[in-house]
Amino acid sequence: MAKNKPVKPKSLARKPRGFPDKREDVLQAELDMIERVTSVYRLWGFEGIETGAFEYADALGKFLPDQDRPNAGVFALEDDDEQWMALRYDLTAPLARFAAEHWDTLPKPFRRYAYGPVWRNEKPGPGRFREFMQCDADTVGSGSPAADAEMVAMMAQAIRAAGAAEGRFVVRVNSRQLMSGLLDQIGTSDEGTRLTILRALDKLDRLGLSGVADLLGEGREDESGDYTKGAGLDAERIKTVLAFAEAGKSTRGETLDALAKALHGSEIAAQGLSELKVIDSMLFALGAEDNVVTFDPTVIRGLEYYTGPVFEGELLDEITDEKGNTVRIGSIGGGGRYDGLVSRFRGEDIPSTGFSIGISRLAAAMAITGQMETLSGPVVVLVLDQEHASDSHALASRLRAANIRSEVYMGSSGMRAQMKYADRRGSPAVVIVGEDERAKGTVTIKDLIVGAQKAKAIKDNTEWRESRPGQVEVPLDGMVDTIRGMLEAQK
Amino acid sequence: MAKNKPVKPKSLARKPRGFPDKREDVLQAELDMIERVTSVYRLWGFEGIETGAFEYADALGKFLPDQDRPNAGVFALEDDDEQWMALRYDLTAPLARFAAEHWDTLPKPFRRYAYGPVWRNEKPGPGRFREFMQCDADTVGSGSPAADAEMVAMMAQAIRAAGAAEGRFVVRVNSRQLMSGLLDQIGTSDEGTRLTILRALDKLDRLGLSGVADLLGEGREDESGDYTKGAGLDAERIKTVLAFAEAGKSTRGETLDALAKALHGSEIAAQGLSELKVIDSMLFALGAEDNVVTFDPTVIRGLEYYTGPVFEGELLDEITDEKGNTVRIGSIGGGGRYDGLVSRFRGEDIPSTGFSIGISRLAAAMAITGQMETLSGPVVVLVLDQEHASDSHALASRLRAANIRSEVYMGSSGMRAQMKYADRRGSPAVVIVGEDERAKGTVTIKDLIVGAQKAKAIKDNTEWRESRPGQVEVPLDGMVDTIRGMLEAQK
Repeated sequence: MAKNKPVKPKSLARKPRGFPDKREDVLQAELDMIERVTSVYRLWGFEGIETGAFEYADALGKFLPDQDRPNAGVFALEDDDEQWMALRYDLTAPLARFAAEHWDTLPKPFRRYAYGPVWRNEKPGPGRFREFMQCDADTVGSGSPAADAEMVAMMAQAIRAAGAAEGRFVVRVNSRQLMSGLLDQIGTSDEGTRLTILRALDKLDRLGLSGVADLLGEGREDESGDYTKGAGLDAERIKTVLAFAEAGKSTRGETLDALAKALHGSEIAAQGLSELKVIDSMLFALGAEDNVVTFDPTVIRGLEYYTGPVFEGELLDEITDEKGNTVRIGSIGGGGRYDGLVSRFRGEDIPSTGFSIGISRLAAAMAITGQMETLSGPVVVLVLDQEHASDSHALASRLRAANIRSEVYMGSSGMRAQMKYADRRGSPAVVIVGEDERAKGTVTIKDLIVGAQKAKAIKDNTEWRESRPGQVEVPLDGMVDTIRGMLEAQK
Repeated sequence: MAKNKPVKPKSLARKPRGFPDKREDVLQAELDMIERVTSVYRLWGFEGIETGAFEYADALGKFLPDQDRPNAGVFALEDDDEQWMALRYDLTAPLARFAAEHWDTLPKPFRRYAYGPVWRNEKPGPGRFREFMQCDADTVGSGSPAADAEMVAMMAQAIRAAGAAEGRFVVRVNSRQLMSGLLDQIGTSDEGTRLTILRALDKLDRLGLSGVADLLGEGREDESGDYTKGAGLDAERIKTVLAFAEAGKSTRGETLDALAKALHGSEIAAQGLSELKVIDSMLFALGAEDNVVTFDPTVIRGLEYYTGPVFEGELLDEITDEKGNTVRIGSIGGGGRYDGLVSRFRGEDIPSTGFSIGISRLAAAMAITGQMETLSGPVVVLVLDQEHASDSHALASRLRAANIRSEVYMGSSGMRAQMKYADRRGSPAVVIVGEDERAKGTVTIKDLIVGAQKAKAIKDNTEWRESRPGQVEVPLDGMVDTIRGMLEAQK
């Protein structure tokens, strides 16, 4: 192994920024979320598909839904046929390529779900990675509002299945048509002004009506003294926008009425309203009541990308962030109708709708709000005497045959190190077979959870030696039942 | 959406070679395999971890275990800090980096499992992809043969859990020390000759003893007339190698005896034999009998990479390939001891052992040998009248509440197209609500599997109309039970 001789250690054992390593607790939480969410997609009849990590760069296009990072980079490289390919930055662009490529033989409309990592070549930061998991569902080839309604209702169901309590989450729905209607109504055709207006609307939650009014007018200075230039609207127009912003009511029906009042005379807005009406009645048919799905004119999402209804799934739980502020967990995903994405490949009209759930964010939120089970490590069978190590392996085999997660300590260190190992593994219990036990045909089992709790209450060494908290010696044949009992008691 | 207008369709909707798209049947089969295999790893106490897709190129190194592709390429690109990073080509190199980086705080030995895609920048071909799934388990920081034995026994258990019938698979074990001992014994120090000898051994299965003898001597001409130059050994040395090659017997004990006879005088071989003896007894303790794990001196695997025991998992089922030949499915993964890989990062001795299972290959093999369940598509609720589409959505909701996978047809086509859609989706049944049914409060349910079979036996139109095979009309409240009954009957 001459080639493998040690070389400057520190320069090697490091990883690129923004690509997280995940230990078992985080990994299992994410897998659990994927399982719960995709189970819903499957139950609703969507077909699971998976595409490769790479697409040709020209097939990926530049259609990132996230308006705040329109120039988000991709990881691209030149293939040996001199064509550029890039790692997918979402799951929608590969779907569009796949659907367009196989359109003639697919069941139509094509309803598929997918999950997997996506890659964005951006500056990483705290909680901001260059590789993360998404879990999407899309319907390709249906322009019906029913398809949008299904997405919205299914997203709500997926969030519920992820473990969010009733009343602690909501899917908020808006429509690109309504926003276009509003902008037409106030007579702004300048792209920059339109964007500033929509960004102001997006901040209603945080800044309130007067803050938004400032941003629609001259501008606004925040607490830190930073000044944001406004859209420069006059008082009349600001009033129109605010009436739109305030149209969100507690039921979808009331919101539709308020929106109809706020938006008048625009054909595109009328079309958006009529679609939302259909979506409303479909949602009731799908069991998604007013408390689960709301219509909310302040939901913005990507402007370039979406062409019809847009929606956003939110967790309403509030948590304390690292600065001690109480913040709402907020968005864990969203989507909308994107009629241009598949069409551009085919030269024919292929309207589509879908959404994406950010799995890491969802799993982290569920962990924070205490809606996740904690994982238990394996039972560790110690090896006190290497010569009899195979006895320990036979015991572990017996435990595994009873479906109890267990392992043998594989190192060469002594008792103290082995107990430390079990501790680091989060073991519920250890099994010990010394000379004594071997002679008697018994095993000693130490409960590391309840035992540790009891040990705390003990005052001195003598009492400890006499009571041996959480420690029992049982005949070999009683091992499985004893450990099973301990695991039950620890729950 | 001016930016999304159609452009040269055919130049866009295509994907790079070697990155497979997977539809639901293949995808579910692979996920099922991952679930079965990782359940075993977890039960044996291994910790699941996941690392990012990218590693720094210098951290990945060039330690591909596959000797036939020593120069296998990676997908590499330069990060914005001007360091080169590359997509992982296996799961072992990232583990080595991870373990070295976190060695001080990890439980030691560190036993982990992982699965995920790996990427190799090679020429793709039939069944040969540039992205594929691996599922690994490794123990880092134990030089004990017990750790190797655990790997071997666990690999056998994983293959069993994947669905391989008892007696239809085997894990074959060899040792790098034995091979080194053999090569020392016949006095070849030339690296090229040593490689030729080992490649010849590797072919015993296919060419038999005389074919191998030719390759050890002057050379061999195959049926096509291609000539392979041999190792150029003399008769005496050929005899020595063949005695080694033939040492594989039906029990591990007999093989160890035969190997001891074939290898004499080499210290390194003696060391290898003594390790295999420990592994043998550990395997018995772990319940891996002679029919499940064999010792086989013709298992070669990577020379540069492995430093001790090596092993290979094989499916013994024979299948007919595309040319009509009967072939054994063969290797679905393997591994061995690699003591240099983690050590090179740390400048200290960190012996390691592990193996990898090729998930796609395993899933394909299980599908071929009929050991996989076939998937059923969703029940499709048809929409005969768009105005009453929400009725169909309510019915699908009801089915889903009863955990029956179902969907509403989302297109705008007529009855015939909807039935074709259901067919393409592999639906077990469709639900129809026309004007008639709506008036009566019933639904019509059509069994697409049993119904189709019965329909075949029907001679004329009149008989069909009268019997309506597989078609029933039931009250709304009977829908769920009727469909559940159909699904049961279809199993």
